[in-house]
Amino acid sequence: MEYIGHGGKPIVERVLKPDEAKDAIKGLTEIPVRRQIAHETISIAYGFFTPIEGFMKYEDVDSVCKNMALADGVVWSIPIVFDMNVDELKEKDIKEGDSVLFKYMDKPLAIFEVEEIFEYDTKFMAEKVYGTSEEKHPGVARTYKYGEKFLGGKITLVNEPVFSEPYATYWKTPIQHREAMKEKGWEAMVAHQTRNVPHTGHEWLMKGAWFAANEDLMVDKLRTGVLVNCIIGEKRKGDYIDEAILLSHDMLRKAGYFRDDVHMTTFTLWDMRYAGPKEAIFHAILRTNLGCTHHMFGRDHAGVGDYYGTYDAHYLLKSVKEKLAIKPVFVLEWWYCPICSEVTCSALCNHTKERQKFSGTLIRSILMDGVKPTRLIFRPEVFDTVMETAEKYGFGSPFVTDHYLEKRQPIFTLKDL
Amino acid sequence: MEYIGHGGKPIVERVLKPDEAKDAIKGLTEIPVRRQIAHETISIAYGFFTPIEGFMKYEDVDSVCKNMALADGVVWSIPIVFDMNVDELKEKDIKEGDSVLFKYMDKPLAIFEVEEIFEYDTKFMAEKVYGTSEEKHPGVARTYKYGEKFLGGKITLVNEPVFSEPYATYWKTPIQHREAMKEKGWEAMVAHQTRNVPHTGHEWLMKGAWFAANEDLMVDKLRTGVLVNCIIGEKRKGDYIDEAILLSHDMLRKAGYFRDDVHMTTFTLWDMRYAGPKEAIFHAILRTNLGCTHHMFGRDHAGVGDYYGTYDAHYLLKSVKEKLAIKPVFVLEWWYCPICSEVTCSALCNHTKERQKFSGTLIRSILMDGVKPTRLIFRPEVFDTVMETAEKYGFGSPFVTDHYLEKRQPIFTLKDL
Repeated sequence: MEYIGHGGKPIVERVLKPDEAKDAIKGLTEIPVRRQIAHETISIAYGFFTPIEGFMKYEDVDSVCKNMALADGVVWSIPIVFDMNVDELKEKDIKEGDSVLFKYMDKPLAIFEVEEIFEYDTKFMAEKVYGTSEEKHPGVARTYKYGEKFLGGKITLVNEPVFSEPYATYWKTPIQHREAMKEKGWEAMVAHQTRNVPHTGHEWLMKGAWFAANEDLMVDKLRTGVLVNCIIGEKRKGDYIDEAILLSHDMLRKAGYFRDDVHMTTFTLWDMRYAGPKEAIFHAILRTNLGCTHHMFGRDHAGVGDYYGTYDAHYLLKSVKEKLAIKPVFVLEWWYCPICSEVTCSALCNHTKERQKFSGTLIRSILMDGVKPTRLIFRPEVFDTVMETAEKYGFGSPFVTDHYLEKRQPIFTLKDL
Repeated sequence: MEYIGHGGKPIVERVLKPDEAKDAIKGLTEIPVRRQIAHETISIAYGFFTPIEGFMKYEDVDSVCKNMALADGVVWSIPIVFDMNVDELKEKDIKEGDSVLFKYMDKPLAIFEVEEIFEYDTKFMAEKVYGTSEEKHPGVARTYKYGEKFLGGKITLVNEPVFSEPYATYWKTPIQHREAMKEKGWEAMVAHQTRNVPHTGHEWLMKGAWFAANEDLMVDKLRTGVLVNCIIGEKRKGDYIDEAILLSHDMLRKAGYFRDDVHMTTFTLWDMRYAGPKEAIFHAILRTNLGCTHHMFGRDHAGVGDYYGTYDAHYLLKSVKEKLAIKPVFVLEWWYCPICSEVTCSALCNHTKERQKFSGTLIRSILMDGVKPTRLIFRPEVFDTVMETAEKYGFGSPFVTDHYLEKRQPIFTLKDL
């Protein structure tokens, strides 16, 4: 069965079987790639970035920067680029028309067809994508670190990643997402983007969005699901550790706060760009490819500092929504209200003086202290999961530290070919 | 501004100004009508039953019974008929082509144009509308009590009802509903049908439906409202008293459980037929005329005994939804879950062993005992309102008794012309 992704194109899947792969890589020049490039190579090859089949060429990069669309007009907001330094290019004698072998962790990863080698003004790119050229913006900083040259061309995975636990449990390719959705009988699926462990505010944000996405509910058959699609990638100190994010979200289902038939947790390999509205568009594209019909967007989606207005992402999404196959669900704030005696929504509850907003800082301090909070704010099973995960993986804290960055086990390994 | 109602027709409004009315009724034969007919006359004249402009003629009654549609094909499920006995017809010498004056409470009410006098098999009507001819069904019993003849023709109100409090506060004609909606800036409005005082299960049913109806929410502007449209009409012993239904629902807003800008309470004069699925269709039509874009339907909508399957109304609505301008929102059950520690939805919560379903009997017994329940189940402000209303109107109990039926003040009065 052919599944259709973003831009109305079939889901890309460019993956060679092991025996084909062995032959195909013979004699290719090897290029070791860094984590970001390896992750994006995998995402491209499995179709997370459909209709993109490789790293972008000049025409697409330029069109994304200037028109927020690929050269063929399909909406796209973040350049997906592979960079190299001139020295390395010379040293390896890489030219347009070559095929090379990406290696990661000393193992073969993918064949890259070097269709084009080009330059692009990274200051211009930063300004267009991030709306700023300030280097303290982490996405801009990343942009400025790119090598002098960009290489555009198709990617073919030759070595499928073998995920370690707990990642293996939650890994699904876009096609596997579609199959899981079909198996569950879901006709609608609403994406929740997260890098957090969930408090009850997040839980109700998802529950409220479930109703919004459930456009044609019949009681005898639930046909709408929530997809918690965690972003797993570059970590910064103080972030929640990846293992805890995955396990705690799934615990909401396991502990019955969500029924088995309306909730699924998976992840995507992606380094957050913190591009705010532009990243929201990218998330919409990504989840379209996973089969989502709806995507929730809250305040300050994927933003950082004060570069973007609280609801800028909503306005940008609204401006292109005719061109997206996914429907944005603009979620409102949920808070704990002592008068209502429950978690309730800013759109509904009028106890504006009494309401207690969820504070990330408060939740973090609760977790730091290890004191179990009221179940109205934070589910005890989720609390236990977060703590046990920190212990199990040997970090003591559910927050990223230098120790974690150094000692965490790899998300996946690659076999020898 | 012309507002469009059910069947794509402009909202009917057939009401004469007092000076016109005085002249128009001169010399007309007077027919005293009972409460049901007076209420339906008022509802017809203000357009609650758009596109109907009067009591149905044979062709429409027959088509409604046989095809669930008016003779012109517009969906309609309940015959709206005016009946008389042969003796009274003879005595007053009423013939087709006459105009007569409906009187109610000894005051002029409306001009009725007797376009057609006909007979209809009430057993057939009962079977078609109610799916049964058993007289213990209250709708069937009502049907069997009709006089030997039906009179079809247009209605024109000549004397506008003056509602007493608390009804006056909540009375709105269909056109006034539309104007209120416009003033509130609502682009969507979801109807809640009720004859109950609300517990937190009802509250969340409405809150969940609000999300379902909020199809294109932008956070900077709430454009969706809940319309609590209470059915005020024939009371049976043990029903909640009308005053308490209206005031307690509005208290949810006044006490801040709903924001002022997302909630409105009104009522419609209508004697429940308990026609289950057919009555659900009728409610959908009614609320279309009030400007609602969505209508919530739960389990056993407007049913009685075990005549209808729990979700029969949903299936019937689904079968004709292309012909309705209003979108059914099929609401699921909300219950109190001690694990979730809150009211939650059957579609989401998996604590099926622990969950505590709301029981009408439990809520009634709480109100009977006058013991204030936990605010998680029943809002204290709503509790106080119900109790105070029962006191204020001199009944002691919020439930209908013989005493209430005898002593309640009239919902409206009519002036002399």
